[in-house]
Amino acid sequence: MTAEIIAVGSELLTPARMDTNSLFLTQKLNELGIDVVRKTIIGDDRERLADEIRQARGSSRIVIMTGGIGPTLDDVSREAASDALSRPLDYHPEITVEIEKRISRLGRHKMAEINKRQAYVLRGADVLPNANGTAPGQWFEDDRGILMLLPGPPREIEPLFETQCLPRLRKLEFPHQFYTASLRVAGLPESEVDERIGPIYSAESRVATTILASPGEIQVHMRAQAATTAEAREIAMALSKLVEAELGSSVFTRENEPLEAVLLRICRERKISVAVAESCTGGKIAEHLTAIAGASESFRGAVVTYTNEAKRNLLHVSSKTLEDHGAVSRETAAEMAQGARRIFEASLGVATTGIAGPDGGSDKTPLGTVFVAVADDDGVEVDELHIGGDRERVRVWATRRALNMMRRRLEGRDERL
Amino acid sequence: MTAEIIAVGSELLTPARMDTNSLFLTQKLNELGIDVVRKTIIGDDRERLADEIRQARGSSRIVIMTGGIGPTLDDVSREAASDALSRPLDYHPEITVEIEKRISRLGRHKMAEINKRQAYVLRGADVLPNANGTAPGQWFEDDRGILMLLPGPPREIEPLFETQCLPRLRKLEFPHQFYTASLRVAGLPESEVDERIGPIYSAESRVATTILASPGEIQVHMRAQAATTAEAREIAMALSKLVEAELGSSVFTRENEPLEAVLLRICRERKISVAVAESCTGGKIAEHLTAIAGASESFRGAVVTYTNEAKRNLLHVSSKTLEDHGAVSRETAAEMAQGARRIFEASLGVATTGIAGPDGGSDKTPLGTVFVAVADDDGVEVDELHIGGDRERVRVWATRRALNMMRRRLEGRDERL
Repeated sequence: MTAEIIAVGSELLTPARMDTNSLFLTQKLNELGIDVVRKTIIGDDRERLADEIRQARGSSRIVIMTGGIGPTLDDVSREAASDALSRPLDYHPEITVEIEKRISRLGRHKMAEINKRQAYVLRGADVLPNANGTAPGQWFEDDRGILMLLPGPPREIEPLFETQCLPRLRKLEFPHQFYTASLRVAGLPESEVDERIGPIYSAESRVATTILASPGEIQVHMRAQAATTAEAREIAMALSKLVEAELGSSVFTRENEPLEAVLLRICRERKISVAVAESCTGGKIAEHLTAIAGASESFRGAVVTYTNEAKRNLLHVSSKTLEDHGAVSRETAAEMAQGARRIFEASLGVATTGIAGPDGGSDKTPLGTVFVAVADDDGVEVDELHIGGDRERVRVWATRRALNMMRRRLEGRDERL
Repeated sequence: MTAEIIAVGSELLTPARMDTNSLFLTQKLNELGIDVVRKTIIGDDRERLADEIRQARGSSRIVIMTGGIGPTLDDVSREAASDALSRPLDYHPEITVEIEKRISRLGRHKMAEINKRQAYVLRGADVLPNANGTAPGQWFEDDRGILMLLPGPPREIEPLFETQCLPRLRKLEFPHQFYTASLRVAGLPESEVDERIGPIYSAESRVATTILASPGEIQVHMRAQAATTAEAREIAMALSKLVEAELGSSVFTRENEPLEAVLLRICRERKISVAVAESCTGGKIAEHLTAIAGASESFRGAVVTYTNEAKRNLLHVSSKTLEDHGAVSRETAAEMAQGARRIFEASLGVATTGIAGPDGGSDKTPLGTVFVAVADDDGVEVDELHIGGDRERVRVWATRRALNMMRRRLEGRDERL
């Protein structure tokens, strides 16, 4: 079963506002196994809206309109629905009574006449009372499918949808149930992930696989469809295992948790403490780690050094290293990571030093050069990166690499033992 | 003149992701006087996409598609455009050469064969080189109007659109011209801003005013419309001056630049160096400052301390202060800010200490309590905040306050002199 969402409101077509109701609605619909196949954002224009409703009803059984059912003259969702369905609007005086009650309860003046516009209901539709606003929703159902007219403000639509639309939707018969398995992958480019797992997921037609790339990370979502949830789960998990076997330890979680959370969980389990020394990432590694609740169990602290003096005085990088190799070097990164471990008395240290740009590159160390070091009792390892793109991209990729190197180091320790 | 935006990508139809490119595009189009009348979000489905393109081109002269032009098999925007326009795709070997160069420049392995999909171009379209990704954009124009195929990632589409699409759009003839004046405001709640400036902007009917609230900041955008850009500019700036007069020094910029950029500009101009000591904000202040290109001119460094030992050893907070007042106290914050100044030899120091949660609150210092200290040669000032909401909200608000306190401190210094 599929659904379409039409978000109505000229303000949603300005640079300043977004339709966020559809995120809430999509989540609730997905939980029932209903796919959202299209979202449209459209102004308060009766003709365009009517066209949109006709088109959406032509392709999906469920159409949800949000917004445009308020009292003012630019609210024309009711009229557009009436046009699209060729059904009249009937005046329901009991709605006006409710609106009047609400307005006097809020201690306002007499109800403005214009509020009566909200008492017009599509012939044959059920009225959905709105506990948090004056405009009631409407639920219309015929052999073409369901059309909902719902209010726009999140605090009105959310409780209304949960208490009145969801119970009605649950009564529909769904031929399928869904289950989604997710893997998150670090350290591989999207094209390589797709090339390696494409043949695997393409062979499983009962699963819709989506690959989502963000800086330094790939997510693989595998949504299976079957007669029962248990069966869907079994199908999704079977594919997930095959995909994970192909990608190996690049997969850092099956639980849809961020890399830094995985890392801190491993640290907590093994009582490993972490210290950070950052130059080009400027606090981003510390920021990521401390974003996780409970980080304080393992995270000891960080030093961000933007000068050679600070690297010497605070992190104990030797003057000779800085002179011989420069601040952006394998050797400096290694000493920074060791220095961080020492000053915070931590078991695991990580460090970054590099050129994030836009200025400061040279032939020897061009823009985007970053050294990332990870140190523990067994020694130090340093990776040299060359990251394309602007300052923020360099910082983000270096941060992701640092977090992933720490994770790999802890896992590698198992192998070494 | 009107435009429609079609955001392509099945991930944009999940509860986890939104199309944000359309906000950027809408702003740029509006500045040219082009109204966006519809936005559609649709999955990677060739047939639906082709239908959507046909429909959009039927009602608007400008149609912009974002996403779905990557290398993987689910990227079908090129094919859908080809179907909708009944035009073939031609293979451009020179694009493959560019992609190969890019991939080898990034130090990766050999180009995956699948990347060649990105070298197919709608017959008659101009290729728009993509400086930040492998997939080039495409600009197609016929007597029905303009169709753009643009990449999905914001860091690719934004520079590509600015450098290649905007100059082409500017050559079109427009009946109206627009100018937007913007003010950014820190330290005031949205309701107060709106209450104070509502009467001012409501009186100017030639300007569409939008108020945008984000954590710790309010943006006021004033878009004027007139026959010429100069006239529109004059109208917008006149209103902006009135609004600024009402809000005073809470306005931190007229240039639409972030607070941290304003702060660093002041520091650079006055040769002031900055050092940071963070506890509950966990590196976020440093991260914000170092995100700005050229931060290294003023930013010396930061220490993130998550333990008392680190506060003592690295920031020289006295044991007595920690014992008598605790780590989350006015006194500790003050000593941290002074300590940061001292160890980095900086003129301005800032510090945060607080309880971001979800655990760790007490009756005396409940969750959300944060002390922010700013220190310079004249002494220290400390603000006590009580921030509602989750861990991230506490961290964000404390960071914004720290940055704004530094700005106010530097401006206050003028008044004191």
